[in-house]
Amino acid sequence: MTALKPISSDLPAIMREIGEAARQAALVLAHASAGAKTRALAAAAKAIRERRSEILAANARDLDEAGRAKLSAALVDRLMLDETRAEGIAAGLEAVAAFPDPVGAVMAKWTQPNGLEISRVRTPLGVVGIIYESRPNVTADAGGLCLRAGNAAILRGGSESFHSSTAIVACLHQGLAAANLPRAAVQLVPTRDRAAVGIMLGMSEFIDIIVPRGGRSLIERVQAESRIPVIAHLEGNCHVYVDRGADLEKALAIAVNAKMRRVSVCGAAETLLVDRAIAEKALPPILRALAAKGCEIRGDQSVRALHSGAKLATEQDWRTEYLDAIIAVRIVDGVEQAIGHINTYGSHHTDAIVTEDNVAAEKFLDEVDSAIVLLNASTQFADGGEFGMGAEIGISTNKLHARGPVGAEQLTSFKYVVRGTGQVRP
Amino acid sequence: MTALKPISSDLPAIMREIGEAARQAALVLAHASAGAKTRALAAAAKAIRERRSEILAANARDLDEAGRAKLSAALVDRLMLDETRAEGIAAGLEAVAAFPDPVGAVMAKWTQPNGLEISRVRTPLGVVGIIYESRPNVTADAGGLCLRAGNAAILRGGSESFHSSTAIVACLHQGLAAANLPRAAVQLVPTRDRAAVGIMLGMSEFIDIIVPRGGRSLIERVQAESRIPVIAHLEGNCHVYVDRGADLEKALAIAVNAKMRRVSVCGAAETLLVDRAIAEKALPPILRALAAKGCEIRGDQSVRALHSGAKLATEQDWRTEYLDAIIAVRIVDGVEQAIGHINTYGSHHTDAIVTEDNVAAEKFLDEVDSAIVLLNASTQFADGGEFGMGAEIGISTNKLHARGPVGAEQLTSFKYVVRGTGQVRP
Repeated sequence: MTALKPISSDLPAIMREIGEAARQAALVLAHASAGAKTRALAAAAKAIRERRSEILAANARDLDEAGRAKLSAALVDRLMLDETRAEGIAAGLEAVAAFPDPVGAVMAKWTQPNGLEISRVRTPLGVVGIIYESRPNVTADAGGLCLRAGNAAILRGGSESFHSSTAIVACLHQGLAAANLPRAAVQLVPTRDRAAVGIMLGMSEFIDIIVPRGGRSLIERVQAESRIPVIAHLEGNCHVYVDRGADLEKALAIAVNAKMRRVSVCGAAETLLVDRAIAEKALPPILRALAAKGCEIRGDQSVRALHSGAKLATEQDWRTEYLDAIIAVRIVDGVEQAIGHINTYGSHHTDAIVTEDNVAAEKFLDEVDSAIVLLNASTQFADGGEFGMGAEIGISTNKLHARGPVGAEQLTSFKYVVRGTGQVRP
Repeated sequence: MTALKPISSDLPAIMREIGEAARQAALVLAHASAGAKTRALAAAAKAIRERRSEILAANARDLDEAGRAKLSAALVDRLMLDETRAEGIAAGLEAVAAFPDPVGAVMAKWTQPNGLEISRVRTPLGVVGIIYESRPNVTADAGGLCLRAGNAAILRGGSESFHSSTAIVACLHQGLAAANLPRAAVQLVPTRDRAAVGIMLGMSEFIDIIVPRGGRSLIERVQAESRIPVIAHLEGNCHVYVDRGADLEKALAIAVNAKMRRVSVCGAAETLLVDRAIAEKALPPILRALAAKGCEIRGDQSVRALHSGAKLATEQDWRTEYLDAIIAVRIVDGVEQAIGHINTYGSHHTDAIVTEDNVAAEKFLDEVDSAIVLLNASTQFADGGEFGMGAEIGISTNKLHARGPVGAEQLTSFKYVVRGTGQVRP
C-alpha cells in the first residue's frame, strides 16, 4: 500500500525534524527521575481509560478503511480494539509503570589493585526506532517500555492502524505532560507513506537502535537495509521433544498446550519430536488429542503408521513456522538426534524437552542453541510477562545484546564509571 | 595492496570451506570443558616460547617485504616483533588461560509464581570473524580470547603481517592439538587477497559476529558493508576536564599522563578542557609540562593568552583524534559546558574529570555519554587488562552488547534455561 494522504511532499525533512526532536528528548529522559517516568506511565494509563471512546472511534475508522481495502480477516482481528483490549492497553502501561526503573542500576562493581573503583552502570540506549505492523497495542507497549528505560521512541506503526495509533499516542503525550517530560519522548511518524521506513533505517545520526516487529518480510527488509543496529525477532519455529524418560501425562498436556493454546504466537510449537523408544505408547494419545482440537498432523511414514489421519511431511515442514493449527511430527532416535534436528531446522527461538531423566534434560538444555530452552513446560511461556519482565516489545533471536524477551532492561546500555584518587598509568 | 600470491583463484570456495569448518568447530568448542580450553591456551603459550626463533624469522620476512614496499616507520613499528614482544604474546595467552571461563556461568536466576525456575546462562557466540591490521600480537590475543569464550575464530590479519601471523597460528594449533580440540577452532584466512574481507562480511550463514580492529577506514568499511552484527571500536577522541574543584597536583599528573604516556593508543587524551574559574592558575603549569615533553599545544585565544607557544585551534581540532603529541585546549565555563563539549565533539569512548567536588563529579560521571567515564584518573586506563579482564580485543564504542573493553566475557551470548514440572500456560 502506498501513501493514502502524505502530509507533505518533503518526507526527509519531516523525518529529520522528528529525529532531532527525539535526540533532544533523549537527553532529558536519560536523567529524568524514576518517579517522573512512573508518573508519566500511570497518567498515560489513566488517559487511555478516560479517552477510551475516542480510541475506539479512531479504531472504527481504521476498521472501516480496512473493510474497504478488503484486508484479510486475520489482519482485521489484529487491528480491532474493543473495551477489553483497550483496558488491556491501560493495564499494560500500569505493569510497565510498576516495573523497577533499570536506569542507574549498578550491574557490577569491583576495585582494582591500584585502588580504581570500577562500576558498570545501566544507561538508556538513547533513541529507539520501532517499526511494526497492524496491532495498535504495540504503540502503547513500545512507547511505554522505551520511556521506562529512559529512551526516546520513534514509532512507525502499520498504516492500517494509523488512526488508532494516533489516538493512543495522544494519551501517551497526556501522560508525559502530567510528569513534565518532553512530548517528543514518544513520536508517531505522522504519515502512512512507506518511504518513511527506508528513511528511518538510514537515520543513524538520530536513532541508536531499530526494533522491527512484524512478519518475516518486514524483518528481512530491516536487516538488509538498516545502517543502524537492529534487535530483531525472527520467526519462532519451536519444538517439543518427548524423551523416552518423559512422564506421558505431562507430555500430553505440554504438547497440546504448546501447539494449540494460541496458534498465532511466536512461542507456539510447530514440530513435535518423539523418542522412538516410547513412540508407540506416547504418540497416539497426543495425536488424537491434537486432532480432536482441530489440528492437522503431518508426519513421516512411522508417524503415519501410528496415526492414520496424518498427512505425509516433507523436509519443508521441518522448516516451517505454520502459525496455524498444523503440526509436523517426527520420530527420532533419542535426545541426541532431537538436538540435531532442532539445531538444524529450528529458528533458535524456544524449544522444550519433556523428560524425568536428568542426564537427557541437562544435555538438551545445554546443547540446544536457542534463546529459550525449557524442561517440562510449554513453549507458550516464551513471553516477557511470563518471565516477570512486566511486558515485552518482542522475543529477540539475536545473539548480541538482547536474546529472548525484550523488556525495559533489554532496551538499555551501560557505561563504566571509574573512580580514582589521582591514579596515572605507569 | 592486491594479492601477492593468491593461493587459489576460487576465493569464495576457500572462504566457504573455512566457514563450514569454523561452524563445525564451534559446535565442539561450545561444550568443551573449561579445563580443556585452559590446557590449549597454556600449551599455545608454551609453543610460542619454544618456537620463538621460527616466529621471529617469519617476522623478519614480513619486515623485509615491508621495507621493499616502503611502508611507514609507524607501520613497521607495529609490525615488528622482538624477543620481548614475543614473550609478551606468550604471557598474554597465559593471562587469558588464567581468566575464569565465562561459558555456563549463571548470570541471573529466579522463580516465577507458577514454579518455573528461570536461569540466564552464558553461552558462546559461535563463530567470530576478526579483521585487523598489522600488529601480529592480535592474532594470538583474538584467537586466545575467542577460545576462552568457546567461540571459533576466523582471523583475517593484515597482509603485511601474513608470515608472522601464520607462525603464531601454528602455535595456537599446537595448543589445540595438545588439548584434543579441533584445529579449525582458530583459522587464519590463507591469502592476502583483500577480496577475502568482502566475502567474510557477507558470510552470515557461518559467522555470528564481526570484530574489526584497525583504523577508521577499516571500521567504516566494515560497518557499511557487513551483513553480520559488528562489535566496532571507533576512534577515541578522549577528554580530560579540570574542574574548579580540582586538586591541581592531581590535575597536572593526570593531564600529562593521559596525553603523553603513549600518544598512539585509543585512550590517549586529545582535548584538555579547563574550568575558567581556575584556568589562570591551573593551566600554565600543565601546558609548560606538556610542552617540555614535546607536545604541541593548540588553544583558543584565552589559552594563547596564558601560554604564548600555543597555536590557534579551529573547531576541527575539537573533533580530531590526533594519536600524536598534539593536544587541543579549551577553557569552559564549568562542568555543564565541559559535558556539552564532550557529548558534542567526543567519540563516546573515554573521558575524565579531575575534581574534589562531589556534585560536579557525579554530574560529569552521569551525564557524559561515553563507554568509560573516570574521576581523578588518567584516560590511559581505558584497557581490558587495567579493568581486570585479562586481555581485550579492543574497546567497543557500540551501545549494544559490548561497550568499553571487549574481553572473553564480552564475546559471549546467553540463553534462558527454564525448568518446570509440567506447567502449561493458561
